[in-house]
Amino acid sequence: MKKRTFKATIFSMLLMFGYLSPSIAQTTKTEQKIDEIIAQLTLEEKVAMCHAQSKFTSAGVPRLGIPEIWMSDGPHGVRAEINWDNWGYAGWTNDSITAFPALTCLAATFNEDLSKEYGVAVGEEARYRKKDILLGPGVNIYRTPLNGRNFEYMGEDPYLASQMVVPYIHGVQSNGVAACVKHFVANNQEKWRGHINVELSDRALHEIYLPAFKSAVDGGVWSMMSAYNQIRGQYCSHNEYLVNDILKGDWGFDGVYLTDWGAAHNTKQSALYGLDIEMGTGTNGLTYSEKNHYENYYLAGPFKEILNSGEVSEDVVNDKVRRILRLMYRTSLAENKPLGSINTEDHHDVARRVAQEGIVLLQNEGNFFPISDKKMKIAVIGENATRMMTIGGGSSELKVEYEISPLQGIQERFKNAEVVYTMGYASGPSQYGQVIPSTLDADSLKNEALKAVKGADVVLFFGGLNKSHHQDCEDGDRLTYDLPFGQPELIETLAATNSNIGVVLISGNAVATPWSDKVKTVMQGWYLGTETGHAVADIISGDVTPSGKLPFTFPKKLEDNAAHHYGEMSYPGDNVNEEYKEGILVGYRWHDTKKITPAFAFGHGLSYTEFKLENIASDKKSYDVNDTIEVTCSLNNIGDVDGAEVVQVYVGKHKSIVERATKELKAYQKVSLKKLSSEKLNLSIPISSLRYYNENKSDWELEEGEYYIYVGNASDNISKKIKVSITSKVN
Amino acid sequence: MKKRTFKATIFSMLLMFGYLSPSIAQTTKTEQKIDEIIAQLTLEEKVAMCHAQSKFTSAGVPRLGIPEIWMSDGPHGVRAEINWDNWGYAGWTNDSITAFPALTCLAATFNEDLSKEYGVAVGEEARYRKKDILLGPGVNIYRTPLNGRNFEYMGEDPYLASQMVVPYIHGVQSNGVAACVKHFVANNQEKWRGHINVELSDRALHEIYLPAFKSAVDGGVWSMMSAYNQIRGQYCSHNEYLVNDILKGDWGFDGVYLTDWGAAHNTKQSALYGLDIEMGTGTNGLTYSEKNHYENYYLAGPFKEILNSGEVSEDVVNDKVRRILRLMYRTSLAENKPLGSINTEDHHDVARRVAQEGIVLLQNEGNFFPISDKKMKIAVIGENATRMMTIGGGSSELKVEYEISPLQGIQERFKNAEVVYTMGYASGPSQYGQVIPSTLDADSLKNEALKAVKGADVVLFFGGLNKSHHQDCEDGDRLTYDLPFGQPELIETLAATNSNIGVVLISGNAVATPWSDKVKTVMQGWYLGTETGHAVADIISGDVTPSGKLPFTFPKKLEDNAAHHYGEMSYPGDNVNEEYKEGILVGYRWHDTKKITPAFAFGHGLSYTEFKLENIASDKKSYDVNDTIEVTCSLNNIGDVDGAEVVQVYVGKHKSIVERATKELKAYQKVSLKKLSSEKLNLSIPISSLRYYNENKSDWELEEGEYYIYVGNASDNISKKIKVSITSKVN
Repeated sequence: MKKRTFKATIFSMLLMFGYLSPSIAQTTKTEQKIDEIIAQLTLEEKVAMCHAQSKFTSAGVPRLGIPEIWMSDGPHGVRAEINWDNWGYAGWTNDSITAFPALTCLAATFNEDLSKEYGVAVGEEARYRKKDILLGPGVNIYRTPLNGRNFEYMGEDPYLASQMVVPYIHGVQSNGVAACVKHFVANNQEKWRGHINVELSDRALHEIYLPAFKSAVDGGVWSMMSAYNQIRGQYCSHNEYLVNDILKGDWGFDGVYLTDWGAAHNTKQSALYGLDIEMGTGTNGLTYSEKNHYENYYLAGPFKEILNSGEVSEDVVNDKVRRILRLMYRTSLAENKPLGSINTEDHHDVARRVAQEGIVLLQNEGNFFPISDKKMKIAVIGENATRMMTIGGGSSELKVEYEISPLQGIQERFKNAEVVYTMGYASGPSQYGQVIPSTLDADSLKNEALKAVKGADVVLFFGGLNKSHHQDCEDGDRLTYDLPFGQPELIETLAATNSNIGVVLISGNAVATPWSDKVKTVMQGWYLGTETGHAVADIISGDVTPSGKLPFTFPKKLEDNAAHHYGEMSYPGDNVNEEYKEGILVGYRWHDTKKITPAFAFGHGLSYTEFKLENIASDKKSYDVNDTIEVTCSLNNIGDVDGAEVVQVYVGKHKSIVERATKELKAYQKVSLKKLSSEKLNLSIPISSLRYYNENKSDWELEEGEYYIYVGNASDNISKKIKVSITSKVN
Repeated sequence: MKKRTFKATIFSMLLMFGYLSPSIAQTTKTEQKIDEIIAQLTLEEKVAMCHAQSKFTSAGVPRLGIPEIWMSDGPHGVRAEINWDNWGYAGWTNDSITAFPALTCLAATFNEDLSKEYGVAVGEEARYRKKDILLGPGVNIYRTPLNGRNFEYMGEDPYLASQMVVPYIHGVQSNGVAACVKHFVANNQEKWRGHINVELSDRALHEIYLPAFKSAVDGGVWSMMSAYNQIRGQYCSHNEYLVNDILKGDWGFDGVYLTDWGAAHNTKQSALYGLDIEMGTGTNGLTYSEKNHYENYYLAGPFKEILNSGEVSEDVVNDKVRRILRLMYRTSLAENKPLGSINTEDHHDVARRVAQEGIVLLQNEGNFFPISDKKMKIAVIGENATRMMTIGGGSSELKVEYEISPLQGIQERFKNAEVVYTMGYASGPSQYGQVIPSTLDADSLKNEALKAVKGADVVLFFGGLNKSHHQDCEDGDRLTYDLPFGQPELIETLAATNSNIGVVLISGNAVATPWSDKVKTVMQGWYLGTETGHAVADIISGDVTPSGKLPFTFPKKLEDNAAHHYGEMSYPGDNVNEEYKEGILVGYRWHDTKKITPAFAFGHGLSYTEFKLENIASDKKSYDVNDTIEVTCSLNNIGDVDGAEVVQVYVGKHKSIVERATKELKAYQKVSLKKLSSEKLNLSIPISSLRYYNENKSDWELEEGEYYIYVGNASDNISKKIKVSITSKVN
């Protein structure tokens, strides 16, 4: 019954996809074709389709013309070509692409239309590059600011991530390229990611960590990538509960489940617990010249053995092959698939607009921003004003056609000003071969910076992290919540010399900001890709009014974060196990509930104009289980520039039979408004979305009683709180 | 007028292509689309399409989704993947393919249906490998047995090459892969190929060297590759007479003309004289890290300069881009193009059948062949019995899924016999890293062989050439007409010990056979690819009756060959110029006319059965200019096994106002006949095909008078000679 409902949903989703609008009859025909193909395949050919044949491809069936699958990192742009069987770059010159802002920035836009545009654009680049699967987007929940890979994900809120991920998927897949949602699930830290066993409650799993994946499946995603870690003692790549029971069982996922690179650990589990394609497994020191290299994969030779012995039925491999062929019919074998394109004006424009809308103005004393272009001296300080941020970070590293640095953007935009630049600090010898001259020690760098800021009309400090190891990078977490490389002291020293200073943080994570009261302005600048400098200058100059909202909380100190509050077993664990002791109280849920004031709250983000929310009301006072709460309000831009605001609706239940967060995001709407104009809004909250996961029944359940609706423009700036009552009876 | 006629031909050809059956309306629509695209392109984008961006690709327009063009060697199978910008293999593991017999063998089949099957099969492999242009077939005329690359071509007769090349092209192109006929024109030797200037008469050019290219164009080929050499003082890559006047002018070629790798020499000539894509040009020592590497190509930066300066009109680049886009609409942009496939049973079967039908039995005393499988000792001698012949040779080198050596094939087939093998001779340390142990000196190798043949019931010697430098290999000619590595002496020594010896020549060229009267049998075994050993065993065992015919003459000695008769200025030239002093008298035309008996004649090839040609007649005694001569005959298989025979019809004019060959091939038909059965044949010769090229008028002209029709099964075995008269008046 459940499954049938799901399929209906999938079909209606598919109908939205543009070129891919198969009727039920067509889909049935495709499934028949798949059956016919499977009947022709040898066991060897079937098994060959279930594992890698190179770093980024899996085999087709050459004798039957069944294509290979070509995959590519990553979510923010299509990675440069890698050698067949080692991690070196292949040295092609046709693979310089558009780098789009990293996904935290996309999440910060709260703009689903932009997410669709982003997906279309990166999907077009993947299609032109002849990729069948784009390995993204990532929707792991932001649990700790130390996680090295947070920049690739969509923040701490399951509802926001669920809403933002689907248009991205539709956009990518409209190009005949499969999106691959990752990493399923609870790969919420890089430290010990390869083996750590995560223990967490069913409520935390279903209410916090799974929803974005469920949303992706309901949205029709064609593939999903496993997490490296274990959940409840079983690796996520072949986890009976996660993959068989939930993903392919309850959710009815009909796509391909593949490993992260090297995340498989067991042949029989891989066979039986839903793994379809094994990628990137280490090959025990075998080199390329040893011909059977990939034959040692869990889903290769050893898989064939247990199939041949009858220990595992051929139905098992047939199901995997059926899913793989289905993905091919959606991608490489799709009729009339688009051609794709790279580096179009439109792609650059999408990248710039996502960056503009995602940049978050955290603090802006005395209207420090915007800065108008006039005859004056602007001192730009900080390594991140010039550093290429598309390099580093791990698998999301990109080879760009161009990347405008913040300094370049400022120099271009502020033609009348004298722009001086000095590094101020250095992150040390780069891993990419740029050696910092030894004369550039910390003191001389600081002294140069002090000279530069003295007498400057405006000081702009570009700091943050930088995608090198331990600084927002795959395969390692940050070691400290503080800014690295002596930045906190430098900022304070510079501010003491010239108080007209603003700080732009280039990072994908929250950082400690104890120095924030010494500076006028703090702006969260993310990793913005190709159009970084243009977007930064757009915001700084006021050409564009900032409208980004934080998709995660900036705690004042690390211990204020829920995961860290509970000590080492909660993060990073004891190298074997880790317990998510905070349960459902992740991010702002924790801060709100425990009344721990953050430095900057989830949903926070300032503007150059002023918005006023008025006439906030719910359509009714009492709802039943099938109802939808309709919240109406009017949003007024009462300031003197055009801008955009994100109206946010949270719901909470104070008296509950289970633990509850004070409030949870349940609806939002981003609205662009000309100055001195207003708009009436309507935000809908299905009552079903207020259910909690009942661990005793292993199912979602609606609790009757009183609920509060909070309407505002940030989780810590609520304009109105409305009480409603909900009954589980049908009225 | 000429052009309009041509176009009608092209359209009717296209209609035969299977999936590609554009109506005139569709073609017009495509041309309109092309115009629309050109209108959107910048000059930079246009120029970028006209030269390489890597070893085997040229650029598309990424921002518009216009694809790149991916090319691959070569005519006998799709070459392994090469690195982006150097000649090293890329180390992929998905590029092991089927090696088909080299084209001399295909020509020797005289079987156009097989040529079509060959083209379909290699085209399917190219399509699966995502290639848009397959760099073949080669139809340079076999002028001298020293030419290192003869094995890639279709022999010495323009009519045979013209007939055999078209089905191959249709087969390849039915996969949405462009064939690329090469090398236009007179790249008839490898020595000094990069600069030698060929001087030849208009008659030799039009009657001998151009017809196969003309036939390819009439057959609708989508691309053509230039020769390295010069003709009449201008490089073939940008030769006003050849490309502008003939290829794109008179013939109306609407496809892409591209260079051989590194064959362009001048920007303005490349611009104006019809070169569309420049590939493989040396880049003056610039390395990959120097970013503008390919920007130095003649059709790159320097081309842009003369376009920008107005020295050359933008129409010039537009014409090139139009042709390139047209090729894309026929290949990468074609709707519903096939998927291709690799290593299908069918491909292996095609490879084996071409090999079976192409092997030529030159001499077979005492019915040495076939050999029946019984309890006996077979001594197999010779390096070529085991050597992989898909390795080496130059750009046609292949990475095969498998290659059955002659020895393997014999061992498999002769289960009851004791098969012993020894090398007999060694070609020396291989260039591919196989070191021949130094103990294997010539004497000890010979002594081992003598031991092996003593007391053997049958001796099979596998010798010939071997695709290493100077031994049938690109970029160098053979240094001698004799068999290398001491083979002649070895054969005589072995024959003196055991006279029951047969020689199988593995080569793509004629060799001196002064030892032929010492051995029972001589068989021409070519380079047969993947199925070599199977096909050889099929013939040796009599499972298949040989039916191949020589596509070129075996002179007794090198001086008997026309090019060599005239001395060094005729071959190889003086390092600057070369004169084709023999004019139209190439191959058997020379031997016949000059009455120089060859060792083995063009069209010669024995069978295990006996054929009789009877009732040979022409339909009339007198013909006018619009007539077609219909030659009828009955072919009888009067032997005791099934077999196939090639009936050959030559025409000659003894008294002529111009120099004439005694006879020229004008029709042939290959017929398979069960033993003791017969078939009536009809062979047609349009009178227009008897025209000669009148150098004074620069046009084809029919000479009135008496002609002789020669019908037989070899150029030196004519069963009947019929006199007819031809008038240039229309009756």
